[in-house]
Amino acid sequence: MNQAAKAARTNIVASVFQPFEPQGVTGVVVVEESHLSIHTWPECGYAAVDFFTCGEAIPEMAHRVLSEGLRAERAEVIFVDRGISHTGPSMRMRSHSTEHYGERAYERASEHADLRVSGETLMAAHRS
Amino acid sequence: MNQAAKAARTNIVASVFQPFEPQGVTGVVVVEESHLSIHTWPECGYAAVDFFTCGEAIPEMAHRVLSEGLRAERAEVIFVDRGISHTGPSMRMRSHSTEHYGERAYERASEHADLRVSGETLMAAHRS
Repeated sequence: MNQAAKAARTNIVASVFQPFEPQGVTGVVVVEESHLSIHTWPECGYAAVDFFTCGEAIPEMAHRVLSEGLRAERAEVIFVDRGISHTGPSMRMRSHSTEHYGERAYERASEHADLRVSGETLMAAHRS
Repeated sequence: MNQAAKAARTNIVASVFQPFEPQGVTGVVVVEESHLSIHTWPECGYAAVDFFTCGEAIPEMAHRVLSEGLRAERAEVIFVDRGISHTGPSMRMRSHSTEHYGERAYERASEHADLRVSGETLMAAHRS
């Protein structure tokens, strides 16, 4: 998680990791640019990741590091734009996509690397 | 935040609060049922809240406590179902709504109180 936060070019403030019995972990990394969280259910081959960012952070790089670390075969990613609107919606689903790592490489980073608004990504990573 | 986590019937594991200069704060409360996070921009009258829950937690109660504590006039809430699917989507936007506190009360808690799946709520709270 800390590697993922660094890969996304964020600055770590604090980390909390809480293991559960018999397995699974919750991890939260507070970064200057907001936060990164993970909840894992190893018995189901499932992990849920959120990355709330602002500024020049690149959440896709964190996804890549985490997907590799989790040995994920498939990851589903939602991008949610978040910001300040006093009239219209303050949150908007930008995209919802699934990547199959066995079939093709994770090529989204460059696509979104110019994202400079605040936003959040929600990821579900799976393995068998 | 801790009051909000308790109101939602979750059990607190750890809390991290990071103030920023000249204003604003990031807060994360890790609970046994997952996590609650907040990022505030007081200069804009804006706060972004996430509450990832599973089990019998009631995120709407946390929203109520936070909206009152933040003296929010308006809150926009997205519910995202999150779970485990090896074939279909693992995340689904359940609802996206806005509450104006000056105009009507926050009556959603009872509507969603029987929510028993894993899920996450994203909230944008505003005041002038």
